[in-house]
Amino acid sequence: MKYDLYKDDLLNICRTASVPDLNVLAQEIREFMIDKVSKTGGHIASNLGIVELTIALMRVFDSPRDKIIYDVGHQSYVHKILTGRAAGFDTLRQYKGMSGFPKSRESEHDVYDTGHSSTSVSAAYGMAVARDLSGDDYQVTAVIGDGSFTNGIVYEALNNIGDHQTNINIILNDNGMSISHNVGAMHKYLNKIRVSKRYDEAKSSVKSVLNNVPVIGGALSRGLRSSKEKIKYSVLTDEAHIMESLGIKYFGPVDGYDIQDLTDIIRAASEYDGPTLIHVITTKGKGYGYAEKYPRKFHGIGPFDPATGEAIGKSGAPSFSKVFGEKITELANKDDKVVAIAAAMGTATGLLPFYEAHEDRYFDVGIAEEHAVVFAAGLAKQGYKPYVAIYSSFLQRAFDFIMQDVALQDLHVVFAVDRAGLVGADGETHHGIFDLSYMNMVPGMTVLAPADGNQLSEMLEFAKDMDGPVAIRYPRGSSEGDHLRLSRFKGSNTVISEGEDVQILAAGAMLDEALKAADLLKQKGFSAGVTNVAVVRPLDTSWADLRAKLAVTLEDNVISGGFGEAFTSAFRDHGYDILNIAIPDEFIEQGDIPSLRKECGIDAASVAEAVIARLEERDGRS
Amino acid sequence: MKYDLYKDDLLNICRTASVPDLNVLAQEIREFMIDKVSKTGGHIASNLGIVELTIALMRVFDSPRDKIIYDVGHQSYVHKILTGRAAGFDTLRQYKGMSGFPKSRESEHDVYDTGHSSTSVSAAYGMAVARDLSGDDYQVTAVIGDGSFTNGIVYEALNNIGDHQTNINIILNDNGMSISHNVGAMHKYLNKIRVSKRYDEAKSSVKSVLNNVPVIGGALSRGLRSSKEKIKYSVLTDEAHIMESLGIKYFGPVDGYDIQDLTDIIRAASEYDGPTLIHVITTKGKGYGYAEKYPRKFHGIGPFDPATGEAIGKSGAPSFSKVFGEKITELANKDDKVVAIAAAMGTATGLLPFYEAHEDRYFDVGIAEEHAVVFAAGLAKQGYKPYVAIYSSFLQRAFDFIMQDVALQDLHVVFAVDRAGLVGADGETHHGIFDLSYMNMVPGMTVLAPADGNQLSEMLEFAKDMDGPVAIRYPRGSSEGDHLRLSRFKGSNTVISEGEDVQILAAGAMLDEALKAADLLKQKGFSAGVTNVAVVRPLDTSWADLRAKLAVTLEDNVISGGFGEAFTSAFRDHGYDILNIAIPDEFIEQGDIPSLRKECGIDAASVAEAVIARLEERDGRS
Repeated sequence: MKYDLYKDDLLNICRTASVPDLNVLAQEIREFMIDKVSKTGGHIASNLGIVELTIALMRVFDSPRDKIIYDVGHQSYVHKILTGRAAGFDTLRQYKGMSGFPKSRESEHDVYDTGHSSTSVSAAYGMAVARDLSGDDYQVTAVIGDGSFTNGIVYEALNNIGDHQTNINIILNDNGMSISHNVGAMHKYLNKIRVSKRYDEAKSSVKSVLNNVPVIGGALSRGLRSSKEKIKYSVLTDEAHIMESLGIKYFGPVDGYDIQDLTDIIRAASEYDGPTLIHVITTKGKGYGYAEKYPRKFHGIGPFDPATGEAIGKSGAPSFSKVFGEKITELANKDDKVVAIAAAMGTATGLLPFYEAHEDRYFDVGIAEEHAVVFAAGLAKQGYKPYVAIYSSFLQRAFDFIMQDVALQDLHVVFAVDRAGLVGADGETHHGIFDLSYMNMVPGMTVLAPADGNQLSEMLEFAKDMDGPVAIRYPRGSSEGDHLRLSRFKGSNTVISEGEDVQILAAGAMLDEALKAADLLKQKGFSAGVTNVAVVRPLDTSWADLRAKLAVTLEDNVISGGFGEAFTSAFRDHGYDILNIAIPDEFIEQGDIPSLRKECGIDAASVAEAVIARLEERDGRS
Repeated sequence: MKYDLYKDDLLNICRTASVPDLNVLAQEIREFMIDKVSKTGGHIASNLGIVELTIALMRVFDSPRDKIIYDVGHQSYVHKILTGRAAGFDTLRQYKGMSGFPKSRESEHDVYDTGHSSTSVSAAYGMAVARDLSGDDYQVTAVIGDGSFTNGIVYEALNNIGDHQTNINIILNDNGMSISHNVGAMHKYLNKIRVSKRYDEAKSSVKSVLNNVPVIGGALSRGLRSSKEKIKYSVLTDEAHIMESLGIKYFGPVDGYDIQDLTDIIRAASEYDGPTLIHVITTKGKGYGYAEKYPRKFHGIGPFDPATGEAIGKSGAPSFSKVFGEKITELANKDDKVVAIAAAMGTATGLLPFYEAHEDRYFDVGIAEEHAVVFAAGLAKQGYKPYVAIYSSFLQRAFDFIMQDVALQDLHVVFAVDRAGLVGADGETHHGIFDLSYMNMVPGMTVLAPADGNQLSEMLEFAKDMDGPVAIRYPRGSSEGDHLRLSRFKGSNTVISEGEDVQILAAGAMLDEALKAADLLKQKGFSAGVTNVAVVRPLDTSWADLRAKLAVTLEDNVISGGFGEAFTSAFRDHGYDILNIAIPDEFIEQGDIPSLRKECGIDAASVAEAVIARLEERDGRS
């Protein structure tokens, strides 16, 4: 190894080394990432794609004085290595370890925390306006993928930036695909540029364009201003009309693996006085054959064997997502009104079999959760039965539309709320711990939560012929509960056992923790019962007559606005004591689920302990 | 009057009458609307602007078989008149009266309910896909203003529609302004088309273009297909690149007051097999001098004198919005880190004085609540103190960004949540009755609610130097409470009086109802106290020691996830009984505030009644 990624001053090397040396550095960073991420898992493909781009950014810009914001953030691994965090890769995405996303608390080079897509341009605009108001002159750059360009907030930001001519650099990292396959007219438009015959000539053209412009020091910007209308910054000016029409100066396209070209074009753009878009062509998984070939598989992956590209230690039990995908395909076989809508996560939400069997009724709208929900409302209005499959934390983006378009018109849309509860390694930005709250407050919403795959499957079928909006929330991971499979779901809850001292009402997939807690309580001599709360809302009226001394609500959702608060407000005065066990009102870090549940006090042992404390406190008082 | 707007079959007249006769109809509709809305108040300016366009739509399309969706919906008055609802204008926007927005429950011609902006294109896409899946052939048309075009969901929808080449007509009703002055690069782009010298020739050009195309029956679409690349649909093809690049066929611009041209171009577009955008140039307030001159004033207005254009019976007390605008201007005078952000509602949220005094620190981002919040996060990250002024119900659109960008980074952004609680005449889509719930669940959020303008003013100042995210929610209308002005706000709640039987904890502006309720209770012999709950979250720990027999929470927010539920969950077990009085978990209709509060059971009389019932029930039991 030429470079010691742990100890060398890589930022300085980026700024001073020759391009051939930087190509060596890039190669060594690739090897390092493949080695490390094969052990921990992580978002490897997108990071392999932007090694040279990240180096070039550090070559041109003076981080952290200059601000670089990585959209969505999972492509910040190279940035982390260059800013002294190679050692963190041993604990990447692990409990108490290094985050897989930019985090200000980790480094001053992480200037803005991201996690959900498409916010970088708006955030960059905020920082750039702050700079201008303060009379400062640092550069602000957003690095955003073509997939993130499908979300409307980017357009809202461009609309403002183009109007005010704020000095911002937008690096469009165009790898020709989003997490899932890419969609949309913008994608086609970008693709037109990528596949243009003239792109073959782009490399030399970039050079010739730049050679005609003085790029030393501040001379360029003055040069540009004086001959603004004469110089063609863009190799493909004709196709650059969308950006140019919005007042954004377009540079590109440029080969994302040519550090010299990248350096030149980024420097030229940064010296232009106004908003620029630099179109960089990259390949997901670049330099690692398996990841280039299967970019979707290697988007976010668990541990794998670097030699074969095969995943290691995959669980045998089907995930909830897989159960969802198979069941909804079966429902669509029988009912031609069933349609499925995904927001760039078709494969991840299990919809591949649906797509294969019913391509005409499958809609991947891109990273556009807002549009997904209103589109579903339009379909439902005309008698279709849309199942909208979106991760719990991403669906937050559609909150207003769930409320205004679906619920207000009482339309029958089924929300398949995947990755509900704690998700593990993705951490704060991805835990689905708010959906019970934001769905509970929507008038007319039915909120269901299966305990296992079998119940999910039955719920999906049951929900098909319900009325009004229905949310079915289920966790990431294995759908196989430790309990025996629950009996047929008919729209109500199941009392699995009745306790005299305590009845644990376990929302959805918290059932297994509740059953284990009940066992622990029984070992201590308490009479503990467990209820499978499959219907979180509306509240089960039978709970007015609970016979245990203590009713415990258990949920993997924050306390505020969740199941427990609703229960307490409704049944406060029914002769039994109440204990709400939920996730505290905080953002929860990354980690393995058992550690996080323990930290939040929602694992079996913590539940048993809290119940005993409450029962003893109660006995002490009485 | 040539036409009887109450009795004539206006749809048939639209389809069959001559253009000169339709011009008469248009004039009579204008006079009718000015007369009626001058008595009830309403959104007059936008409706005056699209009389001819609405007639032309009904001339070309077969409503309700063909679907016409009015974006945001307050410009649907002409549509309501043409579809037999002239009589409803006597009760427009009143309690139990006709809605000012499209409502499926009113008419089969209202095919999709709107209220919040920019959803029409996504909804139209859903309906059009449903049509295609069903093998049906009706037309789907979205009518959307240029202001609504600033929200990103429109771009998300266009991205899908252009990609799939779905047969949809998008009427861009370009009146050159949004509710407030329009903003953004897209606006500049459209304006370039409007002011183009060639637009002067547009009328004749439209004719000559259309004359070269057979427009009878289905012949046009075949004709278009066969010579697709030869015919110029657009008079200004060069400027149409944004739409054309996204795969949307651009038609226009066309004069929004020439019924013949409108008919021809809408028909031509509707016969084109694929997505079209028809660019119609209109003027807000058209045909009513005062409204043309002051389109902002006449956007949404109360009763006015048609002869003078002056508002009738305006209250003397300053609105909360006015207090906000003046106070934040004063704060900005003293602290150059204070910035204000509006989302197309700068004037309505009271920010005009701020704009006049601090134009460099005033940002109207357009109808782009999502971007507004992330933009604020970027500013806050660099040490600025952004006040984001957005209506409670519109801010729902930024929920994910409040959570992920502001709260997760614990940034100090102050949300000025205007129009919180019941708003009155705008009804279901506009009541701000969910914000206490969606803000309460955000980790680290401080939620404040002033009882009157004086307290709002002090809160705004207090909030300036707090840490982390702060939401200050205040209602529409007069800031003058019936109570005496509250003493200086220092970040805590004020016990106005203490009761032995009951203590009413009144969130924010519910204070006056609480004070009246306490008076009623005292008249009945109960000892009733009242607390001004200015800090809704975090919960006041002193409530653990409340000494009344009954604690009543009172709020103009839904029960689910609101103040009451949080209170009950926290203080369930502190020796006093609890009663949560809140808005039921339903969408609430339009009407005057007293009627709606009564309906919801949150007015003084209902509160007193509920308290007495609970106290008597309690005494009965003990």
